Amino acid sequence: MKKSDLVTSILKNQSAKAAAPAEAEAYASANIALIKYWGKRDQELNLPNTSSLSISLSVFGTRTRVKHTKGSDKIFLNKKKLAASDGFVLRIRRFLDLFRSKNEYYEINTLNTVPTAAGLASSASGFAALVKALNDFYAWGLGPRELSILARLGSGSACRSIEEGFVLWNCGIRKDGMDSFAEKIDIRWPELAIGVIMLSTEKKKISSREGMQRTVETSVLYHSWQQKVEQDLARLKQALENKDIALLGQTAESNALSMHATALAAWPPVCYWQPKSLEMIQRVWALRHQGLGLYLTMDAGANIKLLFKSGIEKVVKNHFPTVECIYPFK
Amino acid sequence: MKKSDLVTSILKNQSAKAAAPAEAEAYASANIALIKYWGKRDQELNLPNTSSLSISLSVFGTRTRVKHTKGSDKIFLNKKKLAASDGFVLRIRRFLDLFRSKNEYYEINTLNTVPTAAGLASSASGFAALVKALNDFYAWGLGPRELSILARLGSGSACRSIEEGFVLWNCGIRKDGMDSFAEKIDIRWPELAIGVIMLSTEKKKISSREGMQRTVETSVLYHSWQQKVEQDLARLKQALENKDIALLGQTAESNALSMHATALAAWPPVCYWQPKSLEMIQRVWALRHQGLGLYLTMDAGANIKLLFKSGIEKVVKNHFPTVECIYPFK
Repeated sequence: MKKSDLVTSILKNQSAKAAAPAEAEAYASANIALIKYWGKRDQELNLPNTSSLSISLSVFGTRTRVKHTKGSDKIFLNKKKLAASDGFVLRIRRFLDLFRSKNEYYEINTLNTVPTAAGLASSASGFAALVKALNDFYAWGLGPRELSILARLGSGSACRSIEEGFVLWNCGIRKDGMDSFAEKIDIRWPELAIGVIMLSTEKKKISSREGMQRTVETSVLYHSWQQKVEQDLARLKQALENKDIALLGQTAESNALSMHATALAAWPPVCYWQPKSLEMIQRVWALRHQGLGLYLTMDAGANIKLLFKSGIEKVVKNHFPTVECIYPFK
Repeated sequence: MKKSDLVTSILKNQSAKAAAPAEAEAYASANIALIKYWGKRDQELNLPNTSSLSISLSVFGTRTRVKHTKGSDKIFLNKKKLAASDGFVLRIRRFLDLFRSKNEYYEINTLNTVPTAAGLASSASGFAALVKALNDFYAWGLGPRELSILARLGSGSACRSIEEGFVLWNCGIRKDGMDSFAEKIDIRWPELAIGVIMLSTEKKKISSREGMQRTVETSVLYHSWQQKVEQDLARLKQALENKDIALLGQTAESNALSMHATALAAWPPVCYWQPKSLEMIQRVWALRHQGLGLYLTMDAGANIKLLFKSGIEKVVKNHFPTVECIYPFK
């Protein structure tokens, strides 16, 4: 199924419920998956092979403003106008083509508080903010489910950035993906801290899209990975219900390491780690060995995200001086 | 089944075919697996879940001398007498108990040309050399098959160090393991080079025995790993027949990375890499990306072994100044 056909069917019953404003602005947080999304059953619609579960990063995210302009699209990233040939511009414009009429052009202003393409899911918050802004701009009046589906068409994990807090993306089974959207999990956990350690702001050499596709096609471990996701989802839900940091940490860390492991077994091998990443990973293991309730997760990039409870923030900062601590529920 | 019962049954028909000498000496090469052994179906008899295939390291190995002594065992490693409480001594003595009568004591002199427990399989060459020396010392007259089985009782991969060159360890299915031994593959490949890069001579924190057991028990990826071994064995045999370095290198590297990947998915995670290992791995990938026929493998340790053909030795040495090049067939 084509993206454009799906968009048409979602928007066909949406008559503007309010007057469309001349300009619209929206914010979406980045999210990190505690149970990872790695591998698609549909490349066009970004439909995943497995469900995933994420937590939003509150102040790390994207603010996007949309208005009309004449003659051609103008895309600004962090206040800098991007060249028409920029990869990011091409991706945004292809996405906007799904919604616009002929001779309709946009000025898009995007402010990221996350380094672009450094494994901190800036495309997730970016497409989520854009979809939310478009919803206001056209006064579609869509709810979070439809917005999640539209965001997914821009970038898979963007569907998890429409809502805040813990979010579950059900993989779904439908061919048109109308059952593949993310939903908020109604659990608050104010003590939960995410510590972001930026090791690289460089664009990664292998995109997530390319890395996961190569993994699905060539990694013999992928079959077992899918089974692991099922087990880990059940464990993580239990950890959230009981606010059990050890179970959450162990499940998320093991899931992340397994995702990277599965990618490593692809050919050519897919590896997002840098030597510095491994140094940090081993530091986390050494501290945990000493009894500290500290866990880690990693997305498709070199950076490390720590998982812990607020009580040990000071200790964590001592051992990781560059860490930025985020409390998703504060 | 107990080791001692198995040894009794192997030796029961062996009458000394020659006069036993007062002293015996033997040499065995270390070996590196191109298709890895990772996980046991029997802890006592070191019976593996999967077959494996290795190449011997010629000058890297162990020379062992055996003679009788009075009162207590005396074990020398690299000319230094070891304390009775040393872990290595305890392991050797338990092994010798399988063969000796009451009040029979040995002086064992072991010379390693491989750093002990640094992931270069010194226990493999060590137990293989010891078994070969005992075969002469007692004039058992055992052939390579039985020697391979006896060496396996000391250390699994030791069964692959009885013979030189390419060696296949058939996992077997029998409970007593009498069909689980290593056999020489009758292929010579004089151009094949192994480049050993020693990054650490420290004893590893997690032994192979512990690492593989934890992997089998807790890593969800282990099931797929076993399937990968089957595929890789078939591919590697084809590579040997055609002397195809690209197929050999790709198969061995992917198999090694998958073994480490499977271990990483265990809990607690099992990781033998050091940041420096990853740096070397990425250097290999970068060179291969430039067209060099260079591949790598790693055992349960931080060190890297390169696989390539003699023609590029100079280039390899330029990029890895500390590499030691070994030609198993020269």
